[in-house]
Amino acid sequence: MSAYAELEQRFRRLANLGGAAAVLQWDWAAIMPTGGAEARAAQLAELDVIRHELMTDAVLADLLGAAESARADLSPWQDANLTEMHHRWTHANALPTELVAAFSTAASACEMVWREARSSNDFTAFQKTFEPLLALIREKAEAKSAAFGLAPYDALIDGYDPGFKCAEIDVIFDDLAAFLPDFLAQVLDKQARAPAPLRPEGPFPVAQQQALSRALMERLGFDFDHGRLDESHHPFCGGVSEDVRITTRYDESDFTTSLMAVLHETGHALYERGLPAVWRRQPVGDARSMSLHESQSLLMEMQVCRGVEFISFAAPLMREAFSAADTVAEGAFVPENLHRLAINVAPSYIRVDADEVTYPAHIMLRYSLEKAMIAGDLHAADLPGAWQDGMQEFLGLTPRNDTEGCLQDIHWAGGDVGYFPSYTLGALIAAQLFESARRDIAELPADIAAGEFAPLMTWLGDAVHSQASRYSSQDLIERATGRPLETDAFKAHLKARYLN
Amino acid sequence: MSAYAELEQRFRRLANLGGAAAVLQWDWAAIMPTGGAEARAAQLAELDVIRHELMTDAVLADLLGAAESARADLSPWQDANLTEMHHRWTHANALPTELVAAFSTAASACEMVWREARSSNDFTAFQKTFEPLLALIREKAEAKSAAFGLAPYDALIDGYDPGFKCAEIDVIFDDLAAFLPDFLAQVLDKQARAPAPLRPEGPFPVAQQQALSRALMERLGFDFDHGRLDESHHPFCGGVSEDVRITTRYDESDFTTSLMAVLHETGHALYERGLPAVWRRQPVGDARSMSLHESQSLLMEMQVCRGVEFISFAAPLMREAFSAADTVAEGAFVPENLHRLAINVAPSYIRVDADEVTYPAHIMLRYSLEKAMIAGDLHAADLPGAWQDGMQEFLGLTPRNDTEGCLQDIHWAGGDVGYFPSYTLGALIAAQLFESARRDIAELPADIAAGEFAPLMTWLGDAVHSQASRYSSQDLIERATGRPLETDAFKAHLKARYLN
Repeated sequence: MSAYAELEQRFRRLANLGGAAAVLQWDWAAIMPTGGAEARAAQLAELDVIRHELMTDAVLADLLGAAESARADLSPWQDANLTEMHHRWTHANALPTELVAAFSTAASACEMVWREARSSNDFTAFQKTFEPLLALIREKAEAKSAAFGLAPYDALIDGYDPGFKCAEIDVIFDDLAAFLPDFLAQVLDKQARAPAPLRPEGPFPVAQQQALSRALMERLGFDFDHGRLDESHHPFCGGVSEDVRITTRYDESDFTTSLMAVLHETGHALYERGLPAVWRRQPVGDARSMSLHESQSLLMEMQVCRGVEFISFAAPLMREAFSAADTVAEGAFVPENLHRLAINVAPSYIRVDADEVTYPAHIMLRYSLEKAMIAGDLHAADLPGAWQDGMQEFLGLTPRNDTEGCLQDIHWAGGDVGYFPSYTLGALIAAQLFESARRDIAELPADIAAGEFAPLMTWLGDAVHSQASRYSSQDLIERATGRPLETDAFKAHLKARYLN
Repeated sequence: MSAYAELEQRFRRLANLGGAAAVLQWDWAAIMPTGGAEARAAQLAELDVIRHELMTDAVLADLLGAAESARADLSPWQDANLTEMHHRWTHANALPTELVAAFSTAASACEMVWREARSSNDFTAFQKTFEPLLALIREKAEAKSAAFGLAPYDALIDGYDPGFKCAEIDVIFDDLAAFLPDFLAQVLDKQARAPAPLRPEGPFPVAQQQALSRALMERLGFDFDHGRLDESHHPFCGGVSEDVRITTRYDESDFTTSLMAVLHETGHALYERGLPAVWRRQPVGDARSMSLHESQSLLMEMQVCRGVEFISFAAPLMREAFSAADTVAEGAFVPENLHRLAINVAPSYIRVDADEVTYPAHIMLRYSLEKAMIAGDLHAADLPGAWQDGMQEFLGLTPRNDTEGCLQDIHWAGGDVGYFPSYTLGALIAAQLFESARRDIAELPADIAAGEFAPLMTWLGDAVHSQASRYSSQDLIERATGRPLETDAFKAHLKARYLN
């Protein structure tokens, strides 16, 4: 067997174990009884240990070396696969085993304390477990910096979004920072001059919301023979690509929030489903990056489903799904009203509730704080103040407490620093991809208004899903849209939607 | 670290991986979309391979040897744990790796073909994949025979029910074979002389059946913070002891079948929940054996829940749960009628539908065929004829086809030979345990009639659950009941229930 073939075998084993862990994590978040947590944590930790053992097996280094020197024998996909293998191997082997163990323990401890600290607005309690975790995050950044020859924060970003660096992100974010504040003021001004949209009045029973969600998911192309829709505290997309499981949470007084979460997660799920079957369970067969993943959910939610065409298609289905409810405010289900509701803009404290106009401000705040923390310029103790200053600078708001301030997100508590930029990069990629799709598919708006999504999904399948990790994010975007990632499509989208 | 302590660490890893596999298997049977099967099979196979690797690691033999020679340092529980470790190690190391792989492949293939063959009554198709599997089962029996110094079929039984051998089972089954035919004739005669019980008439909506099931499970002591109730094609109890998941299947025209399945599985679940927390994830902390496990489900279902006291307690709850249904046949919910329904006896072709009087005949048939197959006296091709003869001999029935004959069970198709005796051993243990509990708890019948199950569960907790695998099945039974396993308690139970 060639070194490359043996690598495929070993990475397939890793993927099987990763798939097992993914299902167990889904189960934990969606349906596990609370008393199962300790046993489940032990199961997942064991799978982590074994994957780390397989990944740091000395034989792997030899195999990678041997396969590298026979790259000429590989097909383009195999070649890309070897690159991805090497990339993962470098990440796993960059850290000494003791650091991996210490990091995992500290992150679990901090995340547990964070859950309590957030609900009781107790930053001091959080700080006590975050300080040692932050020290380990910085150690991790240094170790990965050495292994990749990247700046420390760039090396962390590389763990979520390989290829994107601060140099590029800074340019993009500076451009948005220059554009968004004035634009937001214009949007709010225009919005204030129109009467407020009507809110459909429930109750909207969960069973009816589920039925509507499932119907729209199927319409978009979700195959329930290869996936599920369930409930969890926070909506997410999990499982494996043969069995993609999305979740939402229902509010019987407002069906729109849950429905938009379902459509968002359906975008993630369709990406997973569209990955090439022949490269399944190989590194090159996985989704490209966090920003590309987010581009697929945001393209679905923001570009398609909050658009006037989709709303005009879906409004009668919504009306029908809840025919018993809302006999009072008939007008609430008029497409024009539902559309205005779907694109309502309101600066707020909480990132996950933010609209697409104010969302980048939340990200830019976190990005600036992460850079400062990794550089050693911002200490854990100073986070609340820095957060308040940043919210004032980016959104003109001052959170009333840390619960709606620096304690709102799980990421840092779980040790995830370098992840946040992916959200806004994803929004930009979504806008640029959708702009290209519109150019390539003449009838796209009419298709969407008619509930025909196959042409769009075919386009995305060709341009993004089926490419998996064959190209870098940057190359994939350039091949799909004809140019590197820029802010212009996103800005054009915002102007067209909110000011026209 | 002592050799024993290192063994504990290694077996804890194995238990974590086993727990992960158990949850993934539950998911497959209960909620997985069909398209996830291939990926899930790969995940489970990977976990099997890794557990086998850990179990056959040469270091383990050294550690076991070192721990054996320091047995004097161990506490009684540690000593029993070491014995269990050694027993598992011997099972795992008895088979050459190629046999493990060939067996696993053949069993998967045969099980897949069986699903189709059973529904299309195609024995020839089944035979084609069962023949090579049977050859491997016999090879496995020989290998385990050599490793344990047991007869080949005894060595297979040892994999499910350590300690029970044909010599002992033959005596028990011969005794039952002498008793049951006449007894059955008497029961059927007595039954025929009374008017048939009324069947409650549905529909019984699934949601109401679920609510009743959950209420009774909780009453028996099931804690939904540590478990779930779901649906699957065949009822089972899965998951891990911190998170025990039972399933049932609902029939809207008959709530009693599903409810009895729930109560049966609750017996399994309460055993898992009652295992000692300090020995969790160690071999000695696991349930003792298949027969002991079945004794706990049968004690709950057959001894308790089909008894007149339980039915008198539960009848009003059933009546209330389905208050909308069955307005016609009011009399159907009278306790005396429900009890007669619960203990109705009817010889039939299908084991899983059998009552407790005819169930042993189904097992004795399978036991005699398994013995003949392992001895080489019965070939796969001759199974249908032997089955027909056996059904005639044991129950006086002739199945009309193989679907309701030798193709009805999954066990052989999945490679499980030696498992069947556990069902009837479990029924005998249940009767003997329950007889002792009645003797030790003066108020037990009144308690059950009042819906008070704590005294019984405390007794079972002390005598069985909390003992886990500290003693052999035989010793556990003798300690709990004061004598070895006999058939008298079972026969006395049958006589009291069906002839008095």
